[in-house]
Amino acid sequence: MTYPPPPCPADVRLALADLVTAYAMAVDDIGNAAGVASLFAPDGCYDLTSLGMDRIVGRTGIQGFFETAFATMASNAHFVGNVALGACDATAGTAQVTAYGHAFSLGTDGTLLEVKARYAFDLAQHEGTWRIARLGMTMLLPPVHIPAP
Amino acid sequence: MTYPPPPCPADVRLALADLVTAYAMAVDDIGNAAGVASLFAPDGCYDLTSLGMDRIVGRTGIQGFFETAFATMASNAHFVGNVALGACDATAGTAQVTAYGHAFSLGTDGTLLEVKARYAFDLAQHEGTWRIARLGMTMLLPPVHIPAP
Amino acid sequence: MTYPPPPCPADVRLALADLVTAYAMAVDDIGNAAGVASLFAPDGCYDLTSLGMDRIVGRTGIQGFFETAFATMASNAHFVGNVALGACDATAGTAQVTAYGHAFSLGTDGTLLEVKARYAFDLAQHEGTWRIARLGMTMLLPPVHIPAP
Repeated sequence: MTYPPPPCPADVRLALADLVTAYAMAVDDIGNAAGVASLFAPDGCYDLTSLGMDRIVGRTGIQGFFETAFATMASNAHFVGNVALGACDATAGTAQVTAYGHAFSLGTDGTLLEVKARYAFDLAQHEGTWRIARLGMTMLLPPVHIPAP
Repeated sequence: MTYPPPPCPADVRLALADLVTAYAMAVDDIGNAAGVASLFAPDGCYDLTSLGMDRIVGRTGIQGFFETAFATMASNAHFVGNVALGACDATAGTAQVTAYGHAFSLGTDGTLLEVKARYAFDLAQHEGTWRIARLGMTMLLPPVHIPAP
Repeated sequence: MTYPPPPCPADVRLALADLVTAYAMAVDDIGNAAGVASLFAPDGCYDLTSLGMDRIVGRTGIQGFFETAFATMASNAHFVGNVALGACDATAGTAQVTAYGHAFSLGTDGTLLEVKARYAFDLAQHEGTWRIARLGMTMLLPPVHIPAP
């Protein structure tokens, strides 16, 4: 935790939070894997190594990951919050934020997965728009698996 | 999902989010149906048609709806987040935002209802203050009904 | 609920929300009781009287409280949101905000506690940084105790 956070203009603060929210909504738009990938920089990294999974670099790979993931999902709800600024260089167009996600994922098999995670975002401006340069995540609490009713 | 969102001054962004939060707190202030209705424009619309329910227009009707709804509620907790800007015309005083709500409602009969919903807000300035011109909602995941313990 | 909220500069609004988020993250950083205490003003008050518990004044006492509390906690996740401005005097450096917290606490004994609470923050600038002058809380819904699996 960094408190107080580094100085950062209010409009940049809001733009960074917009991208975090856009990510949450994109992963809930099941079937639109290209939409998730578009939020990343072209060479952006989706880093799941701290969960024992892959580190995926580039929009094509990220889109492929979500195409596979979406195939077994019926409905998602990702609530993000606790957006905290760790670094901000508005001139260079780079920033770091952490956020919490409380996520529910209903599988096509009827099972429900509930996750409380902490996201670490490296964000960067690309052609005038903030994109995800790297997204990592860790679990705040063990995931909860609820069998189909 | 609209990313990046349209330009909108930071103070307007914060004012729009204030109204979303005020709505969540108002529906948790059980018994104060007039408080909920006051957040709507005089000709505001509470549109539950996508849930198979009514489309209510005007503060009197909205107040009546909440008087009925509150009668069977003991305690509520509406957590709102993921506030995303879809449209903003600061000059005209109109905006559109979506938001997520994670809501818990404890009935007077001891049952607990848990809802994950997506709100669609049309917001408009009325006499200098942002009010709800229309509020629609859809379910992100099926509601969960928990029997009384 | 105060709607619309009192006027307050956007950068102050963001700074107040930063402190609320920092508090949530600090109580999830189990073992770092000094980190929680540092968010309070030197004479800050952690007021749990509305929960039938103590009213603790000063950083030393607050740190001690959290040292004891953390001793039985394995993992926490505090999601805060619904940050609403009740008062703001940017010149004097004082403000009041309320916020909601959806908190999960996994005990060292494997039990899980889920809380939906409403926080009342009195915030004040101390040596140029916003700190917690007083934090009170009430329950929005009864806490849920989930036995160890």
